[in-house]
Amino acid sequence: MASLNFDGHELNHSSIFNNNPLDPEEFRRQGHMMIDFLADYFLNVEKYPVQSQVAPGYLRQRLPESTPYNPEPIETILQDVQEHIIPGLTHWQSPNFFAYFQCTSSTAGFLGEMLSAGFNVVGFNWIASPAATELETIVVDWLGEMLMLPKSFLFSGNGGGVLQGTTCEAILCTLAAARDQMLSKIGTDNMKKLVVYGSDQTHSALQKAAKIAGIHPKNFRAVKTTKSTSFALSPDSLQSQIRKDIEAGLVPLFLCATVGTTSTSAVDPLGSLCQVAKDYGMWVHVDAAYAGSACICPEFRHFMDGVEGANSFSLNAHKWFLTTLDCCCLWVKDPSALIKSLSTNPEFLRNKATESRQVVDYKDWQITLSRRFRALKLWFVLRSYGVANLRSFMRSHVEMAKLFEGLVAMDKRFEIVVPRNFAMVCFRVSPKAMGMRKSNQSHQNGNSDNGHKVVEEEEEGSSNEVNQKLLESINMSGRAYMTHGMVGKVYAIRFAIGATLVEERHVIMAWKLVQEHATAILSTN
Amino acid sequence: MASLNFDGHELNHSSIFNNNPLDPEEFRRQGHMMIDFLADYFLNVEKYPVQSQVAPGYLRQRLPESTPYNPEPIETILQDVQEHIIPGLTHWQSPNFFAYFQCTSSTAGFLGEMLSAGFNVVGFNWIASPAATELETIVVDWLGEMLMLPKSFLFSGNGGGVLQGTTCEAILCTLAAARDQMLSKIGTDNMKKLVVYGSDQTHSALQKAAKIAGIHPKNFRAVKTTKSTSFALSPDSLQSQIRKDIEAGLVPLFLCATVGTTSTSAVDPLGSLCQVAKDYGMWVHVDAAYAGSACICPEFRHFMDGVEGANSFSLNAHKWFLTTLDCCCLWVKDPSALIKSLSTNPEFLRNKATESRQVVDYKDWQITLSRRFRALKLWFVLRSYGVANLRSFMRSHVEMAKLFEGLVAMDKRFEIVVPRNFAMVCFRVSPKAMGMRKSNQSHQNGNSDNGHKVVEEEEEGSSNEVNQKLLESINMSGRAYMTHGMVGKVYAIRFAIGATLVEERHVIMAWKLVQEHATAILSTN
Repeated sequence: MASLNFDGHELNHSSIFNNNPLDPEEFRRQGHMMIDFLADYFLNVEKYPVQSQVAPGYLRQRLPESTPYNPEPIETILQDVQEHIIPGLTHWQSPNFFAYFQCTSSTAGFLGEMLSAGFNVVGFNWIASPAATELETIVVDWLGEMLMLPKSFLFSGNGGGVLQGTTCEAILCTLAAARDQMLSKIGTDNMKKLVVYGSDQTHSALQKAAKIAGIHPKNFRAVKTTKSTSFALSPDSLQSQIRKDIEAGLVPLFLCATVGTTSTSAVDPLGSLCQVAKDYGMWVHVDAAYAGSACICPEFRHFMDGVEGANSFSLNAHKWFLTTLDCCCLWVKDPSALIKSLSTNPEFLRNKATESRQVVDYKDWQITLSRRFRALKLWFVLRSYGVANLRSFMRSHVEMAKLFEGLVAMDKRFEIVVPRNFAMVCFRVSPKAMGMRKSNQSHQNGNSDNGHKVVEEEEEGSSNEVNQKLLESINMSGRAYMTHGMVGKVYAIRFAIGATLVEERHVIMAWKLVQEHATAILSTN
Repeated sequence: MASLNFDGHELNHSSIFNNNPLDPEEFRRQGHMMIDFLADYFLNVEKYPVQSQVAPGYLRQRLPESTPYNPEPIETILQDVQEHIIPGLTHWQSPNFFAYFQCTSSTAGFLGEMLSAGFNVVGFNWIASPAATELETIVVDWLGEMLMLPKSFLFSGNGGGVLQGTTCEAILCTLAAARDQMLSKIGTDNMKKLVVYGSDQTHSALQKAAKIAGIHPKNFRAVKTTKSTSFALSPDSLQSQIRKDIEAGLVPLFLCATVGTTSTSAVDPLGSLCQVAKDYGMWVHVDAAYAGSACICPEFRHFMDGVEGANSFSLNAHKWFLTTLDCCCLWVKDPSALIKSLSTNPEFLRNKATESRQVVDYKDWQITLSRRFRALKLWFVLRSYGVANLRSFMRSHVEMAKLFEGLVAMDKRFEIVVPRNFAMVCFRVSPKAMGMRKSNQSHQNGNSDNGHKVVEEEEEGSSNEVNQKLLESINMSGRAYMTHGMVGKVYAIRFAIGATLVEERHVIMAWKLVQEHATAILSTN
């Protein structure tokens, strides 16, 4: 115990934490080690089974029951990561990952995240770290302009953007804003009359947000879509549902329209939907979580046409825009609606900058108070790759999807389930392939006199079963990972292209894999 | 454009993105560069003004108006970070940062965050990356045991924990669960009767969560606290407020009790509050965002006594537990209540593991669907430092707070505003110091016959003004950063110790700084 004289006062030094946990040289040593670990991971990620092959509970059997009392060296921990964690990962960065929608990484996005974790500032309001707020207001304007968002959504046009974690938060925040705006007109006692609309293809985030925001469970509408509109929400169907609700004494509140649905990347017709909503004074949010990123390419921008009629628009930069999880960009035309609903002004955050009204305090634009400095990673991505490369990146994925689509078309056993819009192909083993097989079998059994209709229905059911088996069998192989969607009564395999490391050869290999497994299943079924 | 023969089909190669944005060797090169950048930042962070000195709008003037069309080298971007971002940061990792509550970093926490960003998996359900879910269930049990949380909060006791971003989310989720549980008993039409309780010291997160969850704005109760209980919530006050509400036909729903309030780190008496709440079937959430971490030390564990009567408990590991932002640990006794309120089961996420009911799907424990692999950083921290060093870390900060308290006590111009519980000292220039000065002035003016009461009130107001000036003057110096709280009518300066890099010398320097600025202000005022 050392001692120090200070103003004649003798002090005890606590030597209990000799090695500061943020010692710069130890940080440097371990940091370099981790970079090499990850670079090697990216070199090898293609070799791992894409979907983890572990069984539930595998990890608890391998790890100690409690926290160690004494420190363990980083080398031991990294060895455990290699031996025990990596086998339990489903490798989202594998070029053979074609499931869900991707969660893309990049060196720039990763570096931005590192820098944010290193600075570790909390930008709840401007004063708590001005750069965190200001850079965010700048990059959301930059990206908004790349998307040709109407100026009314940008800070430069009195709207504004914010970086949140995920679309779930973006929808919840805008829904709360819409709700409170409406209640201020019709009275807070009318909460139970408010109705929220999406289609049956809208992401479950909408229903969850409605539940959390206290919308009456009976007042959530998932308007039915059909194959005739490629599973896009029909303005007529919306209109007729709204009329019914109004007749029942309810109040239409909020519509979530989607550019690029999860199941089939369908695109709702924003222009005419906004027109319907406008007639009833509803808030329209556009969820472009996946496909929004592609709209920085002029040739895809038309999918967003009509967005000028909406109140808010969001996309997940972590999906297709290389930022790493999480980074949802939300733009609103009227930030004051968000702020009215989400602001609190506790004493401990009072400061002159806020009182000057010259600054943005992002705590009032989101659910949480504390917030990470996410703008860094978006800024790094925008600058490291530039508009030109970012467009090329999206286009290369769309080109690969076209390639895959072509391959599917060449094999008569398969069919495309819905038209492709972006870089995702929905396909399946065709009921006709079942039919052909069954028909052969029936002939052999001397039992070919079923009516056409019955045959078709049987074929559909049988096709769904076969496609489910096919998908499971592909995923079990570990050589590629895909997921499924149900549209209408059709079980479709979703082949989503978007992993940062994906190349044509992976797409071609994946297709060969699909064919091999289909052959095996069709021959034994 | 190369071409490839595959099953006789000629394919076009897109050479548009030659340099893959996740090329392992480029990742390695840039990653090492960033590690060195950050290690140097930690070496130098002490030298920067703690609170940023920039004016609103500084950054927009310095950056281009739009995204560059062509890529820019990482070297240029890092130079801009140094020149334009760092001056706009308030340096939360500076050892001279004594504001708010700290947001602690560490090499281990940082490495865990890096690894999570590198793997970039999305663990919404078990199947999407089993290790992400399983490691989380393990580390929350480890930490829960370190805290001596009752077994009923742990997976090993049929409760369970989850890592969310912030306390705001934890409170919103538990509030939604409590709300839906209550409405299932009393009917969904009774939403507007539900009442939420905290004290006037409870974090604003509670009020915000209540707003988002659709609790009627008139039904939020911030029960008054007083100096007599050191600003802890009195069970009697709570009881009498609840009785009033019941008489008015309302339904008590939710109490948020706090271990370590923001203004003064007051501790609400959990045992007796839970007893009151139990009588009315209310949900009790314990918010130990700041002080919970310290409770891994046996000598501080008593602050959590009574937690066994609560329904849920949360702490922010990013505050005092070295994980970097964000990492809120939430434990609940009855996960099914959360799940009932927050689950959705869209087709695209259907899988056999979920249907087997043998796995945890964390998407149903939180607001968002997508979720980062936060368990890695908590695991790295627990293992890299071990129980022993983690306790020492908390204790060293508490020791430094005692030292600061002692220094304050030695200067007659100052006083401690409320008793210290953890590592935060609330102090101010005493009204007596004003009195002494005024009294001298009054004597000089021949005007010493004011009543005592009036003098005291004047002194209080004058003290608040002086303390506000003092705080502004300290923060403007850039040599330390502190914030304030208002308790009762008293403006207190909060001196929170918790930065990872802080040492005794910084505390001593900060105190000298306070003294210097106080001397200057008291002599001119």
